[in-house]
Amino acid sequence: MNESGARQVDGGITAPRGFRAAGVSCGIKARGLDLALIVSDTRATAAGIFTTNRAQAAPVVLSRRQLAAASGHATGIVVNSGCANACTGADGMRHAEAMAAATAVAIGCGGPDVLVASTGVIGVQLPMDKVTRGIRSAAAALAPGGNADAARAIMTTDPFPKEASVEVTAAAGTFRIGGMAKGSGMIEPNMATMLGFVTTDAAVEPALLQRALKAAADETFNAISVDGECSTNDCVFVLANGASDVILKDSDYAILVEALRHVCEPLAVGIVRGGEGATKLVTVRVTGATSNDEARSAARAIANSPLVKTAIHGGDPNWGRLVAVAGRSGSDFVLDRAAVRIGPVELFSGGTPHDERAPQAAEYLKGNDLVVAVDMGTGGGGSSQMWTCDLSAEYVRINAEYRT
Amino acid sequence: MNESGARQVDGGITAPRGFRAAGVSCGIKARGLDLALIVSDTRATAAGIFTTNRAQAAPVVLSRRQLAAASGHATGIVVNSGCANACTGADGMRHAEAMAAATAVAIGCGGPDVLVASTGVIGVQLPMDKVTRGIRSAAAALAPGGNADAARAIMTTDPFPKEASVEVTAAAGTFRIGGMAKGSGMIEPNMATMLGFVTTDAAVEPALLQRALKAAADETFNAISVDGECSTNDCVFVLANGASDVILKDSDYAILVEALRHVCEPLAVGIVRGGEGATKLVTVRVTGATSNDEARSAARAIANSPLVKTAIHGGDPNWGRLVAVAGRSGSDFVLDRAAVRIGPVELFSGGTPHDERAPQAAEYLKGNDLVVAVDMGTGGGGSSQMWTCDLSAEYVRINAEYRT
Repeated sequence: MNESGARQVDGGITAPRGFRAAGVSCGIKARGLDLALIVSDTRATAAGIFTTNRAQAAPVVLSRRQLAAASGHATGIVVNSGCANACTGADGMRHAEAMAAATAVAIGCGGPDVLVASTGVIGVQLPMDKVTRGIRSAAAALAPGGNADAARAIMTTDPFPKEASVEVTAAAGTFRIGGMAKGSGMIEPNMATMLGFVTTDAAVEPALLQRALKAAADETFNAISVDGECSTNDCVFVLANGASDVILKDSDYAILVEALRHVCEPLAVGIVRGGEGATKLVTVRVTGATSNDEARSAARAIANSPLVKTAIHGGDPNWGRLVAVAGRSGSDFVLDRAAVRIGPVELFSGGTPHDERAPQAAEYLKGNDLVVAVDMGTGGGGSSQMWTCDLSAEYVRINAEYRT
Repeated sequence: MNESGARQVDGGITAPRGFRAAGVSCGIKARGLDLALIVSDTRATAAGIFTTNRAQAAPVVLSRRQLAAASGHATGIVVNSGCANACTGADGMRHAEAMAAATAVAIGCGGPDVLVASTGVIGVQLPMDKVTRGIRSAAAALAPGGNADAARAIMTTDPFPKEASVEVTAAAGTFRIGGMAKGSGMIEPNMATMLGFVTTDAAVEPALLQRALKAAADETFNAISVDGECSTNDCVFVLANGASDVILKDSDYAILVEALRHVCEPLAVGIVRGGEGATKLVTVRVTGATSNDEARSAARAIANSPLVKTAIHGGDPNWGRLVAVAGRSGSDFVLDRAAVRIGPVELFSGGTPHDERAPQAAEYLKGNDLVVAVDMGTGGGGSSQMWTCDLSAEYVRINAEYRT
């Protein structure tokens, strides 16, 4: 698929045919929408990726089990904000199961065909009366134009909703992919949670869908960092219902990954832009590493470095911090052949600083959409890209406040 | 050696017999002491540990080479603050060599018998005229009471000097160990550098000294974190000159490690207390891990977590963040059997929160010397302890300022 094969369309999660969505307020949060449903008109194939955190919230444990029980199929996804249902013991697991069961009844599908996600405060039980009523209201409100409400209902401290959708034209035919996500800023002010939901009206076998989702997420949702934390509740789901009559096979793998990236990348970058206290979006590019994995390790170290993130916040073209963090990342690094660029300005190369160019780089850093690049100097072809944000005093203020 | 075998004495780096020190101002910094010498009256055995950063400053490369060339011996250590001599290319290496050579002439020892350390701004060449004059002045000022000036001369943004010294009585006899260190807060506002210098008047073979230094540092200098960064210039040196006539052998290994810890622990904890923007010292204890290494990984993740550090800064007994960070640390973690304590207050155990105790924990967090403890719930005997500090808006302010 070439770049011209994908064009942006409206509609987010309901842009693909045969999907409806809704967002309602059921009282989990003090105010605002707090429960979302995404439903396919027909049973869809499904795939999911889950937090690697060993402290997994009940909905994460349940959804993994549901996906296995339904052999990679699902009809609906129910999501609540305001309560993470994490660290809630056996009661929490029963509540997650009850959310799935109530949704299956409300939308008329099999019990294992519902996926569940939650985000919000840790260690508090869900108010199940409210949740159950909310599921019924949401099912009644399901609509092809329900994407905007759904995208708002999954927000916690996110400053704006995140939606994306494209129409893709490939040899197999024309199909759509849509999605929505919520941010990884810390929540109320508990743990960060990143949730992503993607739909497509192409038909894709579960194993291929899972493989393509993982590949697309590695370069998008897994390539962002606000503060290096990883939540008890993170997950990304994709449903494929075939309503476009386009069938994507193993031979279409590259097309499918690329199509998923067209939706996942703006959602992931939107999460970083909406990171708590963030004032600048920073694209970190690492090249000249011995492998892509080594490049990713270095990019991750830079994206998570408080020294780099505070320097960028302050507009300081501090190439020394980039050298030092690349050097401590554990990846091969050859100081005498390494290079550091801030935007278009090369500030360090061949073991020597070019501090005379610092004013030019400082001017560049006044912008809000920045690129910093490090060549690891090994002569290898490994490269990686991540997105991060600056670290501001506002981040500290938000996260140091007592939970009230 | 039991606890009563070590008693605190005055004198820092010159508390052991046969050591002299000096700190002078030679003009590398705009004001204040900026060059220190530590000299043994006789050639001493020596050991060193160095930054694992692959971007190593010239003095680190040189000192490693000197230690090898002198087969684990040294007579003097020269240290400057105000300039890290890092990322300075071939000229920087020549400057480090010239510092060692000038010191050898000034104190009358062999060329390889001088160790060199630098801390300060990255990417700037040393003003060698000033440095050479400073070395001559410092050599003329060497005195058994020169420890206090030396401890001040290695400071950069450290809020206070860090010295410690003990007299140890063991079966082999009575000997002294002294030391000084500078902090790992970010420097001017460039990269963090931790420097530690230790002397003893016991006689210790180089291989034993190296092994004991590594073991002591792993539980002290390597068990602290201000912001998870690791500098281009970090190093810790120890000199042993035998002036007490006490000889420590392989069979005294445990005594030597314990004696080194008596000096290294207060120096390391002092570095954390003096961390940039730090208002609270936090001891992180992890137990119930499958191994000490797994416990250390979890302790390190907690000690470096911006979410944990901001919560502690704000006095928020946020056990959920401790659970989530322990869970993402990569170490085995069993949620249903894990436990979290803030000071004496258990806030989470057996998969269940005890939020009714949160006010008691919030009261405890008003203190400035805090303990947080996580049991990983594996039933294993692995444990580890680290020291860290809170993350304040002041840290961001200091590190976001443009270098001027």
